[in-house]
Amino acid sequence: MGSKVRAAIVGSTGYGGVELIRLLASHPQVEVTSVISSSSAGTPIAEGYPHLTEIRTELLDGIESAAIRAKADVVFLAAPAGVASKLAPELLEIGLKIIDVSGDFRLKSPALYEEWYQKEPAGQAHLDRAVYGLAEVFGEESKGADLIANPGCYPTATLLGLIPAVAEGWIDPATIIIDAKSGVSGAGRGASLGTHYAEINENFKAYKVNKHQHIPEIEQVLSRVAGKPVTTTFTTHLVPMTRGIMSTMYASIRGERSDRDFIDLYRRYYEGRCFVRVRGEGVLPATKEVFGSNYCDIGFAVDRRTGRVTVVSVIDNLVKGAAGQAVQNLNLLMGWDEKLGLEFVPVYP
Amino acid sequence: MGSKVRAAIVGSTGYGGVELIRLLASHPQVEVTSVISSSSAGTPIAEGYPHLTEIRTELLDGIESAAIRAKADVVFLAAPAGVASKLAPELLEIGLKIIDVSGDFRLKSPALYEEWYQKEPAGQAHLDRAVYGLAEVFGEESKGADLIANPGCYPTATLLGLIPAVAEGWIDPATIIIDAKSGVSGAGRGASLGTHYAEINENFKAYKVNKHQHIPEIEQVLSRVAGKPVTTTFTTHLVPMTRGIMSTMYASIRGERSDRDFIDLYRRYYEGRCFVRVRGEGVLPATKEVFGSNYCDIGFAVDRRTGRVTVVSVIDNLVKGAAGQAVQNLNLLMGWDEKLGLEFVPVYP
Amino acid sequence: MGSKVRAAIVGSTGYGGVELIRLLASHPQVEVTSVISSSSAGTPIAEGYPHLTEIRTELLDGIESAAIRAKADVVFLAAPAGVASKLAPELLEIGLKIIDVSGDFRLKSPALYEEWYQKEPAGQAHLDRAVYGLAEVFGEESKGADLIANPGCYPTATLLGLIPAVAEGWIDPATIIIDAKSGVSGAGRGASLGTHYAEINENFKAYKVNKHQHIPEIEQVLSRVAGKPVTTTFTTHLVPMTRGIMSTMYASIRGERSDRDFIDLYRRYYEGRCFVRVRGEGVLPATKEVFGSNYCDIGFAVDRRTGRVTVVSVIDNLVKGAAGQAVQNLNLLMGWDEKLGLEFVPVYP
Amino acid sequence: MGSKVRAAIVGSTGYGGVELIRLLASHPQVEVTSVISSSSAGTPIAEGYPHLTEIRTELLDGIESAAIRAKADVVFLAAPAGVASKLAPELLEIGLKIIDVSGDFRLKSPALYEEWYQKEPAGQAHLDRAVYGLAEVFGEESKGADLIANPGCYPTATLLGLIPAVAEGWIDPATIIIDAKSGVSGAGRGASLGTHYAEINENFKAYKVNKHQHIPEIEQVLSRVAGKPVTTTFTTHLVPMTRGIMSTMYASIRGERSDRDFIDLYRRYYEGRCFVRVRGEGVLPATKEVFGSNYCDIGFAVDRRTGRVTVVSVIDNLVKGAAGQAVQNLNLLMGWDEKLGLEFVPVYP
Repeated sequence: MGSKVRAAIVGSTGYGGVELIRLLASHPQVEVTSVISSSSAGTPIAEGYPHLTEIRTELLDGIESAAIRAKADVVFLAAPAGVASKLAPELLEIGLKIIDVSGDFRLKSPALYEEWYQKEPAGQAHLDRAVYGLAEVFGEESKGADLIANPGCYPTATLLGLIPAVAEGWIDPATIIIDAKSGVSGAGRGASLGTHYAEINENFKAYKVNKHQHIPEIEQVLSRVAGKPVTTTFTTHLVPMTRGIMSTMYASIRGERSDRDFIDLYRRYYEGRCFVRVRGEGVLPATKEVFGSNYCDIGFAVDRRTGRVTVVSVIDNLVKGAAGQAVQNLNLLMGWDEKLGLEFVPVYP
Repeated sequence: MGSKVRAAIVGSTGYGGVELIRLLASHPQVEVTSVISSSSAGTPIAEGYPHLTEIRTELLDGIESAAIRAKADVVFLAAPAGVASKLAPELLEIGLKIIDVSGDFRLKSPALYEEWYQKEPAGQAHLDRAVYGLAEVFGEESKGADLIANPGCYPTATLLGLIPAVAEGWIDPATIIIDAKSGVSGAGRGASLGTHYAEINENFKAYKVNKHQHIPEIEQVLSRVAGKPVTTTFTTHLVPMTRGIMSTMYASIRGERSDRDFIDLYRRYYEGRCFVRVRGEGVLPATKEVFGSNYCDIGFAVDRRTGRVTVVSVIDNLVKGAAGQAVQNLNLLMGWDEKLGLEFVPVYP
Repeated sequence: MGSKVRAAIVGSTGYGGVELIRLLASHPQVEVTSVISSSSAGTPIAEGYPHLTEIRTELLDGIESAAIRAKADVVFLAAPAGVASKLAPELLEIGLKIIDVSGDFRLKSPALYEEWYQKEPAGQAHLDRAVYGLAEVFGEESKGADLIANPGCYPTATLLGLIPAVAEGWIDPATIIIDAKSGVSGAGRGASLGTHYAEINENFKAYKVNKHQHIPEIEQVLSRVAGKPVTTTFTTHLVPMTRGIMSTMYASIRGERSDRDFIDLYRRYYEGRCFVRVRGEGVLPATKEVFGSNYCDIGFAVDRRTGRVTVVSVIDNLVKGAAGQAVQNLNLLMGWDEKLGLEFVPVYP
Repeated sequence: MGSKVRAAIVGSTGYGGVELIRLLASHPQVEVTSVISSSSAGTPIAEGYPHLTEIRTELLDGIESAAIRAKADVVFLAAPAGVASKLAPELLEIGLKIIDVSGDFRLKSPALYEEWYQKEPAGQAHLDRAVYGLAEVFGEESKGADLIANPGCYPTATLLGLIPAVAEGWIDPATIIIDAKSGVSGAGRGASLGTHYAEINENFKAYKVNKHQHIPEIEQVLSRVAGKPVTTTFTTHLVPMTRGIMSTMYASIRGERSDRDFIDLYRRYYEGRCFVRVRGEGVLPATKEVFGSNYCDIGFAVDRRTGRVTVVSVIDNLVKGAAGQAVQNLNLLMGWDEKLGLEFVPVYP
């Protein structure tokens, strides 16, 4: 099949970056040629991540565009918000393809970005150039793109669970309420009281209610799909576990629809897309059933008493919600089979 | 103050029963004189619960009405659904006062009980006689009662979080959506695949969606408070932790109300009731903050964008959601200070 | 009984300090009159510890000796190592009684302290004055003392599990190996990668092997009991849980001894001391069985094949291993019943 | 490379069996052609294991030798103790190769098996025929074998951590003490009070002290390596986590040896065996660092004060301790590279 595509990972010492290393290690068409960290350049990555002992033995590189260009064809940006907006234009300029795992290129409106992220936005031209990489919905747009905005973890679970019903007009978008729950790895590796084991263990809490930066991302996509502005209520909670997101979503049904109807609609909508698994009647997915894998599993509970449907959608936040979907986007961008390097069976139990 | 009230606990080997033992051990006015278990009668309770070693050394009693009468003045029934409906009438007959921690006397309609519990209901006369012991709302009714139906764990967290706003007409009851989460102890001590550590740990799942037997209990009370029938969407999830319930509740606001308005309303409503703590602006409670205690903590997030309020209410399911509220009800029934024996500081961390 | 003893707590915002607040809240003879924190003085403690909402509403005090003297009779020092060595002499001088929960006054040798703690030691006079407050062994010495060095968490579990056998000569001290495990709260509330939820959850690790500062403390006491120098192998591990310590201890038996013999010996040794529970034949205690309580539970497994005994000893590290034993020492120091304010039933499950 | 080897898995609905399915799904030379369960034959495996939805869709087969023979070349036996002893001889007879993940063929002495397993042993001929598949030590013997006894989880971690030092005579075998800890998946999927989430979570306990059936297995191998009978003290503990084993091992050193010496010895001993990673000076491995992978990581702490070495060895009990080593043994048996299908990067965090 010829030589492999060379990939660099910026932000290799975050959880998203280190998950990219795990996934790409078994990708048949990709070789990771540079693992990059601004803070730890010059040290071996296994020093901070001993699970990589004898697996990745080279030293971490610093962020230097020309050096990246010399080593790589494609760059995964897994840095905190505010880094990619500055770095990506420079790397695009010198011919690199970019998959950005941060939120810097997801919102089309710089003003909205500034409001929710409280950072300086990327320029409009680059925001327009970026393709929103929700693979099962907009995957066609990723083919041949050079700047992909990888969707956020919550938006991925949420949007895959809502889009077919919104697109088909089966639910009233004005009634959508999203109650989302995430494992702690979503908060990143930074040490803080909020990630302290003794504060999280045997605890369940809500955070950033109505204030999460994923709200405008979700609304932007739902509005596009609905063909009119959609505003949603979106609540995030922290679960005492490491990986996994569940979005429990509520909406009023238009017309008479059964669980079976929803299942059939979603199976048609996602036909041929192996990473979405629409569950059978009466079955709701649990986060552990996708642990370590790129699956998004979806189930339904229609309630005739209230005329509402409850949609449950689960992903592994670090895989389908970050690194896995990024690899999937690379596959699409390169014109490969989207499954390449991603056919992990979930780790259970 | 004279001699202590003698209490018997039926169902002492369940988590609710054993929590009653813990709480009553430091109650100044109560002495537990009989711990009763149909399945383990004749053995020491510390055999199955070694944490009670040298604390309770007597043998478990069997269920025998006359023997209970000889030893006790009041009986806590902490048995599975279907036991109290048969046992309580017999015990009332011989002059015992009953606090039932199961669901057998909560619903006023036998038909509704039969539909949701799939068991034979208690007779209408006893259902009418039972007082629904949501202490901070209907506490006056408990005074002098002889049969108290202790509220369910989910209904306690949910109703305390909704009632002031519903009573005041600040939210539209038809729009209420309740997304509830519970620790695993709520499932009881019975061994099953669903409570297996390796299946629950690092997992988050929904269960009994639209089918939980606490739905009619919540709707019965909300309907009473609203003065008209209320139907709700109610979803339950299992959190990988032992204790704690959070109800995250959504409803459309009538008129313009701020977080501050809700806080003030609730503080007025619960004035003088020390076990409800209404949190300050921008603060939402976490389950660990009430762990091991009888508190119910409540917080608000009004969203002007959507015109909805998100109410977060947390309890320890085994204390305020079961044994603690049962003791509180005993205090009310006896005409004592409701705090007696319940002033535990939450165990943190 | 007259007026209550007034207590101040220095280091109130650490886990040990906040646990003292919990325990003393129900002590019949003590009133906490000052909660002190050098870092958060002037703010309400419930801001950082919302579980104390409406329970402790005053502002945190700073560390100022005269102000402490005005408010308190006794001071609990729950600050990091290196604070008490400087503060205690000053407070003793002005007539306060001190119970130090840190390691500053446990070792009688300043040189040893300096070697293991890498901090400046207290003066020899104060080290000599300090009573080592292992209540069940040296409790007599606490009566009337004015400076008590509260034992470390690991030493408490370990020493209570070894002392009767060493004192009686039943095991060879030279063969003692201690394999200890602790919940994460033992590391304190400081945020670090080592306490990050995602690094601890679903993980088990050893740390500070042969280097833990509790080694000289254990050896000092064992040497005193054995009447000759004892050197031990001591390993510490971090368990993915919040509270609890287990010491699993191994030693070669001198002569023929059965489980029964050990049980009888220990029950005689600890007769009348209600917080040590020696378990029956074939029963080994688990950490959860003492959760939230002041108990130390001990069990034995003699192996005739190897001639060794395995001793298992468990405590709640924040109670018997810190705040609870500190209260017990206050009780002894004041000449009260050692159980006062400590008769909590363990929280289970 | 020609056609793939066809594999059947008996006991597919246990945790060991389902892990074999996960690992073999990405093995380039093996196709799983029959997943077998005596209890669930005729149903789809994804019914009980929804994480396999759309991954394995066929129905579970029953145990029928001729049918197995028709479909498979090699059989993994992942059934409880007592099944393989009866089934394996029959399957060998008809030409199948067997890798037994249970304990039925590990002990060479039928009497010892009977004593520790309290079941009827396999015949001496088959016990003699079985190769003990500790891959990094006895791997040569697996080549071309037709009956492999896959080592137990605890013995794997323990023996890999002890053998080089025992073989070289660096430690005194008579002084070996093994303090082992395991996640709960090691107990299997059967529901019991002992695996109930609320009993395990926030708990740490010892079990089967001096009575675990892995004791004679460890002693048999150590005796073989030492060239004389070795008796050990072996304690097992349950950690509140799903996967992972740590063996912390203690022994007296013969002569003067540093950490560096042990590291060098072990690296020489395991040279070329990629699944054993001997850590550097001052570094001890944690269980999470091998999660989901086939690695066994080993570290050392020599203590000059006591003349003892502490060896820490970790594995994922379901991979290197069961399914992974079984695949490794298949690779060896077939004469393939032992890494085939096993080069998973550990899942972290």
